[in-house]
Amino acid sequence: MSDSINLSLDEVTQLAAQALTSNGFSTEQANAIALTVTAAERDECYSHGLFRIPLYLKAGKNSATNLKAEPKIGQSKSAVVHIDGCEGFCPLALQKGLPLLADKARHHGIAALAIHNVYNIAALWPEVETLAEQGLVAFAFTAANAFVAPHGGTKPLFGTNPMAFAWPRNEQPPFVFDQASSASARGEIQLHGIAGKPIPDGWAIDKEGNPTNNPDDALAGAQLPFGGHKGSSLALMIELLAGALIGDLFSYESTQKDTANYGAPFGGEFLIAIDIAHTVTHADAKTAQNRAEELFSRVLAQEGTRLPSSRRYDARARTLNSGVKVSKELYQQIKGYC
Amino acid sequence: MSDSINLSLDEVTQLAAQALTSNGFSTEQANAIALTVTAAERDECYSHGLFRIPLYLKAGKNSATNLKAEPKIGQSKSAVVHIDGCEGFCPLALQKGLPLLADKARHHGIAALAIHNVYNIAALWPEVETLAEQGLVAFAFTAANAFVAPHGGTKPLFGTNPMAFAWPRNEQPPFVFDQASSASARGEIQLHGIAGKPIPDGWAIDKEGNPTNNPDDALAGAQLPFGGHKGSSLALMIELLAGALIGDLFSYESTQKDTANYGAPFGGEFLIAIDIAHTVTHADAKTAQNRAEELFSRVLAQEGTRLPSSRRYDARARTLNSGVKVSKELYQQIKGYC
Repeated sequence: MSDSINLSLDEVTQLAAQALTSNGFSTEQANAIALTVTAAERDECYSHGLFRIPLYLKAGKNSATNLKAEPKIGQSKSAVVHIDGCEGFCPLALQKGLPLLADKARHHGIAALAIHNVYNIAALWPEVETLAEQGLVAFAFTAANAFVAPHGGTKPLFGTNPMAFAWPRNEQPPFVFDQASSASARGEIQLHGIAGKPIPDGWAIDKEGNPTNNPDDALAGAQLPFGGHKGSSLALMIELLAGALIGDLFSYESTQKDTANYGAPFGGEFLIAIDIAHTVTHADAKTAQNRAEELFSRVLAQEGTRLPSSRRYDARARTLNSGVKVSKELYQQIKGYC
Repeated sequence: MSDSINLSLDEVTQLAAQALTSNGFSTEQANAIALTVTAAERDECYSHGLFRIPLYLKAGKNSATNLKAEPKIGQSKSAVVHIDGCEGFCPLALQKGLPLLADKARHHGIAALAIHNVYNIAALWPEVETLAEQGLVAFAFTAANAFVAPHGGTKPLFGTNPMAFAWPRNEQPPFVFDQASSASARGEIQLHGIAGKPIPDGWAIDKEGNPTNNPDDALAGAQLPFGGHKGSSLALMIELLAGALIGDLFSYESTQKDTANYGAPFGGEFLIAIDIAHTVTHADAKTAQNRAEELFSRVLAQEGTRLPSSRRYDARARTLNSGVKVSKELYQQIKGYC
């Protein structure tokens, strides 16, 4: 791309961090966000890469956001770790919480991490992948802005509510999926609108609750869960886990709170980590992982299949050597913030 | 129905237990299965009710099945409980394991139960509902026979792999869903075949991997996951949790093992229970449940929605008073086993 420039991953991190610290973020908050943004660029998940820096800056203009938040660790002898994000962004709270969660999982066999009071506009795969890289099985759940109607209903109530899962693999990156409980990402509808293309059936309904292929009508109406009532039940489960279970906001409450439309959902994130060494019997964790490898190879032996995250890992193999391409327009925009 | 008779729930339990003990099942195994069957009849989930007794008897003819199995409790100081079902059926192993799981969840905040070496042809909602009735949040996962192709593939590999979730409610039965990761239950395809009706798009592919609406071709081919690649990822996650994680069989291994087609999948079940009192902060578990009630009422305020399990609970309200209707044909068949 002649309209793009090449950056090393370190340069991405520095650029992202500088844009944030130049706009009031503490070094710690900025660095944690910058690493998340870099991981996304590295894996060519552009919508969570540098593209997101302007969204962090917009969210940071909300006076309720604490750009210098220092997450607080809740003490507990149980298998549940609490981190109060203190109205900062999620990445730093995760950075503090994940090692504690991993320790608890190794000690108790299963453990949970409740992240409270954070603004979260990052993907969930980085945290479950981090845990699986340490040999743990991991889940993550978070609610979001209320854009999705419950199955059978017509009005936005649930967030696009992603759920992520990771399983550690032998000598290669973990098995990871991170999927919204909506039929599509909101950004995909927006991209169809920009391109002047109709959206597929099943993605959304208009304000009156009728199925629509018009991106604008979809954005003004409601997104639909994936897979009908089953995806809707998952979306509701995620509201309960990331909302009621840990005492943080539901998606609709987060949307109500964001009256000036700063865009970043406020609330919690709930994670579970499991140590295979405690759950497997008659064998060890290594044997369990080898058995999983046999299952993966049977999936991949069928032509037309792939494992989730394989595109990310393919991208990573390229970018770790050659860096990433960033559009000049986006690069200049972010440089302008520094 | 003039071709049906009315039974009280106690009569259902006695009939089911007697059919099983008359055919070599121990009283303990038979009673546990009979209670599961009764719960299904009570909630008008007929496919898991008395209809299933002949399937238990067929599975029981497998010499590998232990009709008098006494589940063994594995000792552990961690938050993971292990129950070895000793080649018996799952309900008795659950009966032994659930109280221990609940105790561990209350002590540690989060706990897991691994049920090993069981034949399982029951639904998952009874166990998560039981846990939620005690105020716990619960998940259950199990693999099954290999009937479902991975997304993009053409050959059966995954089970219909259900996942169940429950949340405790105030003064009413829990919020519960129990959903297969396949687009349809296998029994629904069989029922379409019996009725001579085509199956809907998206349920299955034929032996060559082409989409089919023919029930026979579907049964000879492969079922499809619900919701495309997202349901497929959930099915794979469930294989990992109920298979590799706890050292039990994958669906395809269970199918391979059942060479004489006794029909009952053999393997494990994995459950997680969470005590809200440990996860919620700035409030108590009661407040968390009240917040969830507010979310449920917002779902139900939208015309056209319902909560999963509401049909079961409506049925229960009827049958607890008036008993259940059982077809004379099924009743005579089961009496014939006694």
